[in-house]
Amino acid sequence: MTKAPKSAEQEVLNANLEFYRALQNLDLAKMEALWVQEEIATCLHPGWELLIGWEDVGGSWASIFKSPQQMRITISRPLAVVHGDVAWVNCIENITTLYEGGFSTASVEAVNIFLQREGKWLLVHHHAAPLPDHVPANTSRSIQ
Amino acid sequence: MTKAPKSAEQEVLNANLEFYRALQNLDLAKMEALWVQEEIATCLHPGWELLIGWEDVGGSWASIFKSPQQMRITISRPLAVVHGDVAWVNCIENITTLYEGGFSTASVEAVNIFLQREGKWLLVHHHAAPLPDHVPANTSRSIQ
Repeated sequence: MTKAPKSAEQEVLNANLEFYRALQNLDLAKMEALWVQEEIATCLHPGWELLIGWEDVGGSWASIFKSPQQMRITISRPLAVVHGDVAWVNCIENITTLYEGGFSTASVEAVNIFLQREGKWLLVHHHAAPLPDHVPANTSRSIQ
Repeated sequence: MTKAPKSAEQEVLNANLEFYRALQNLDLAKMEALWVQEEIATCLHPGWELLIGWEDVGGSWASIFKSPQQMRITISRPLAVVHGDVAWVNCIENITTLYEGGFSTASVEAVNIFLQREGKWLLVHHHAAPLPDHVPANTSRSIQ
């Protein structure tokens, strides 16, 4: 018995989940392995300017992971489009950050572009736009 | 004498400029002709939720163009990556909106994804993230 092959969309959605898992776990080695480590890599963290090229993109993750904040990230409404060996995923990042005495939540609308390299889907662009007035249902913005 | 063929990057950058020209000119027919009019079309206007499918994306442009505000849009730091018949452009949108008695400016970091269809580069995704603290050099945020 062989497993049914995963659809390309499912593979890309899995790679997308791996990205958020690496982010939540502050796992730098995993994060680095998920990217196309070339000049075409670009990354927009919320509120930052665009980072261009793997040197800056990889450096930003190293810097972010050095000041760890405990956070939980869940993804909603993931939408994958696959076009040959390029794909992109639109999804909402629901981020809960824990701090002394409470937590805060934020919602971010993200698009992640992937290239398929040797059978693996690797990130080449991450673009995160804060959703300023979006509060997920049943969630307070902060609790003290 | 024949013209040298435009590079694919240049073609995509031109399509990207056409998009902002249609936006600045509030030219709905032109805007519609620039898009892949299918379910895979997605669009994130600053501060909106993601629009999914051409019906909603096209409808949003019609609605935006119905309440015209005079604006000027310039693009800085356009970066195109072409991968077969998929391409994306990262750029900064510098938007000046005129209103009674003054104007305001905003900077937006955008990524636009294009598909090549019958030799033409068409938008399939627009994603605009406001740059909250970014004021272009030599520009006041507003003048009354």
